[in-house]
Amino acid sequence: MLFLGLIGFLNQPSFAQSAETLSIRNYGSQNADKIIREFSEFLSIPNVASDTANIRKNAAAIMDMMQKRGVKNVQLLSPAAPGAPPAVYGEVMVPGATQTLIFYAHYDGQPVNPAQWAAGLEPFGPKLFTGAIDKGGKNIPFPANGKYDRDWRIYARSASDDKGGVYTILNAYEALTKSGMKPTTNLKFFFEGEEEAGSPHLDEILEKHQSLLQSDLWIICDGPVHQSGKKQIVFGVRGDAHIDLTVYGPKRPLHSGHYGNWAPNPALMLAKLLASMKDDDGRVLVKGFYDDVIPLSASEKKAMREVPSVEAQMKSELGISATEMPESVLNEAISMPSLNINGMQSGNVGKMASNQIPTFATAVLDLRLVLGNDAQRQQQKVIDHIAAQGYHVIDHEPTDAERANYAKLIKVIPGDDGYNAQRTSMDLPIAQKVIAAVQTTTPDPLVLQPTSGGSLPLYLFVKYLNANTMTVPIANHDNNQHAENENIRLGNLFDGLETMAAVMGMR
Amino acid sequence: MLFLGLIGFLNQPSFAQSAETLSIRNYGSQNADKIIREFSEFLSIPNVASDTANIRKNAAAIMDMMQKRGVKNVQLLSPAAPGAPPAVYGEVMVPGATQTLIFYAHYDGQPVNPAQWAAGLEPFGPKLFTGAIDKGGKNIPFPANGKYDRDWRIYARSASDDKGGVYTILNAYEALTKSGMKPTTNLKFFFEGEEEAGSPHLDEILEKHQSLLQSDLWIICDGPVHQSGKKQIVFGVRGDAHIDLTVYGPKRPLHSGHYGNWAPNPALMLAKLLASMKDDDGRVLVKGFYDDVIPLSASEKKAMREVPSVEAQMKSELGISATEMPESVLNEAISMPSLNINGMQSGNVGKMASNQIPTFATAVLDLRLVLGNDAQRQQQKVIDHIAAQGYHVIDHEPTDAERANYAKLIKVIPGDDGYNAQRTSMDLPIAQKVIAAVQTTTPDPLVLQPTSGGSLPLYLFVKYLNANTMTVPIANHDNNQHAENENIRLGNLFDGLETMAAVMGMR
Repeated sequence: MLFLGLIGFLNQPSFAQSAETLSIRNYGSQNADKIIREFSEFLSIPNVASDTANIRKNAAAIMDMMQKRGVKNVQLLSPAAPGAPPAVYGEVMVPGATQTLIFYAHYDGQPVNPAQWAAGLEPFGPKLFTGAIDKGGKNIPFPANGKYDRDWRIYARSASDDKGGVYTILNAYEALTKSGMKPTTNLKFFFEGEEEAGSPHLDEILEKHQSLLQSDLWIICDGPVHQSGKKQIVFGVRGDAHIDLTVYGPKRPLHSGHYGNWAPNPALMLAKLLASMKDDDGRVLVKGFYDDVIPLSASEKKAMREVPSVEAQMKSELGISATEMPESVLNEAISMPSLNINGMQSGNVGKMASNQIPTFATAVLDLRLVLGNDAQRQQQKVIDHIAAQGYHVIDHEPTDAERANYAKLIKVIPGDDGYNAQRTSMDLPIAQKVIAAVQTTTPDPLVLQPTSGGSLPLYLFVKYLNANTMTVPIANHDNNQHAENENIRLGNLFDGLETMAAVMGMR
Repeated sequence: MLFLGLIGFLNQPSFAQSAETLSIRNYGSQNADKIIREFSEFLSIPNVASDTANIRKNAAAIMDMMQKRGVKNVQLLSPAAPGAPPAVYGEVMVPGATQTLIFYAHYDGQPVNPAQWAAGLEPFGPKLFTGAIDKGGKNIPFPANGKYDRDWRIYARSASDDKGGVYTILNAYEALTKSGMKPTTNLKFFFEGEEEAGSPHLDEILEKHQSLLQSDLWIICDGPVHQSGKKQIVFGVRGDAHIDLTVYGPKRPLHSGHYGNWAPNPALMLAKLLASMKDDDGRVLVKGFYDDVIPLSASEKKAMREVPSVEAQMKSELGISATEMPESVLNEAISMPSLNINGMQSGNVGKMASNQIPTFATAVLDLRLVLGNDAQRQQQKVIDHIAAQGYHVIDHEPTDAERANYAKLIKVIPGDDGYNAQRTSMDLPIAQKVIAAVQTTTPDPLVLQPTSGGSLPLYLFVKYLNANTMTVPIANHDNNQHAENENIRLGNLFDGLETMAAVMGMR
């Protein structure tokens, strides 16, 4: 057990599992102020994938950070489409190394609706808080004395998802080398710039740069650690596919008094359609929805059983007293294909509400896929379900003839950005080496998850590079990724440094 | 049959039913340009009831128009609450008259969401179109030669609902006197300024000015003529009440991958709740919803049978091939209590959509009431239905304790602006006189409706003044009132002049 002092932090874990971890922790603590300020600068560059000008600034900032850290062969891997975000590549080749790890994170973030962020927050104006806002955390200035608390948080888009990943990978390499250690394997870095837009050009980049991107394993740094706070390694991801639905009512908005209960109300029609998709126990009623699923292996099932239960903790934290599928714990729920309403809208609510029958009602569905599901096939099952409810399905605004012929008209646009799930076997020797390396940084048993609930297009790495992938996340689970008020806990940012450095220096 | 020339109009009906109607028509035609321009100026003053400064400007404009036309005793009837819109009053006392008619219209309009209006339209920037926009009508400048077409339309908030009513009443009086005729009854004018806000101070004004507002009959000029284009008189209104619903999911927005199908989705919960409120034949499933209803009288039933069928026309016009209640025609549907979703919203849709489980889902319900229903009792039936679906009903944002104790939590805010239905008997002698007068302006049999589908707080006129009311509307039925792209057809505006003048000069 190795004790250490407090330098840049007001609090620290009381011991470290290894001398190497202690060195990295000391480095992080000594450089905490510099690290947090540089990270905040990085977060202040807007990073929605469609914002070409700012995406270029982000890529330039990453190249600059790589070069300052001695990373070689730094370059942009640009898709052919003008304006499409480039991936940023760099490498550190180690003389005598027999294996190559390639680290993945993405520097773009989810779209933002600043109006939905809490008062005082700006998606691209990082702010320091004394804790989670919804638990009473208060905004404070960056401390003049350079002393931070591990429970403080930085609020900004991509603080966790996934500039936190990009920055931690780069800093782990710096921490390793500045602490007198050396990587044991060749290190490659690959930072994508349009993951949140569905990675539309990742296939093109991987195919074009097959030899540059060869490796023994991709380490994906994205998503959160386990809700119990324990470090986790995730061996797969769910696939993802969207469907946009628009149900049509009268051609023009109608007075709800003069036509109410006579003209069909598209909001009610959509409500009934959505309600038909799941039973009261959260089971999806779409025919064949749970078919195609490849069952978990024996070691995957064993790992799942050992994952700590977070049911009570998460219910309390989220303010819910029941889950959607009463018979499935969280782990089981995310091992199944899912159907989620991301949003729905018809007419106006609140102060804008008026007494009308709206002309249309719209919803966005998010389908998560597991190994065995095919994105298009899964979308088609939902479309077939909609048709089975009596809807005439079209892919355009309805014509007068269609309106005259069909009582139930719906425009269905299956997202073309869907992709399938992916899972790497826990039993691979290199997987076991990563597990052992991360385990040196923490006294708690690692949580090993066969699959994440979230999605990344990891199947592309198999398709173009025949690669293995493992996800080693660092963010706190309550980081609000994909929503307003995204944040990262400082303790997670600095624990992540230890995790990533351990993988880079693994034996 | 009396033929007449075209002066301000490119087209006119080919004959008039009476010499008086011909005189009014000639007056309208000769003054068309002046009338349309003055009306447009009136429409360009914003008139949402909460916009105190502009409401004052509207009231001043009405007083000015009254005084220019020789109306006497012009005054504001102001509620005690500072900033509450005043009613505008004026009168014309006729020596020897034995009856008094009081004309009602409201000068405020529904709230506007300019973003939802068609390109080129501004709610408070009246524009002339060659027809209905959704049927290819084009924007044209006000004609320099002063020649208009009866099928042209003016687009602006309140063009129909209900500045059209205010302006037509004032102009009918002017047309009558300038055409050498005289009113046969005392005329009073009462223009309300917050009808679309639920008439929160109408009771106060009526109670305070009981003697000033005495009459034999209120003529309400609001709402549309019959969908067949025929003139109609309506003897009652439905009552109206609102309910705002908010269903709660997790306290913070969740990633739909990491928690999809585990955390309850409030959008799905709301969809299921709304779906539970009506069966597939549009019948409201709320227990007792159709109780309390006072049946129609024999003459009301007879009048209903004689109303021309508009089912095929309206379906074609609205682009729908089926109605919500397949077994009820429009007339029957609006004689029943109704439940309509005015709007619903959860998360984001379209370009703002993100992969999340929203924290709440909200909807606004509009309940229409018929004679016998009580607004609060009808709201309570819906609340009881919600509770019967397993919801714990609260009137505030949920506390942590409530979240921990109840799986299904809903905030229900019954609108406090609800009011009951009202119906005047068609058999009253003064009602018969009005019917006869309006019939002199048109060769087509009048459509006599026991009740409108829409609502006005007419029960207050009974409560405070023991008054009779009849609604004599003028607007085209496809005027988009209460929604974007509100408009009035010029033919309706000028036919309305004849209608109102006939009532003022009735024998």
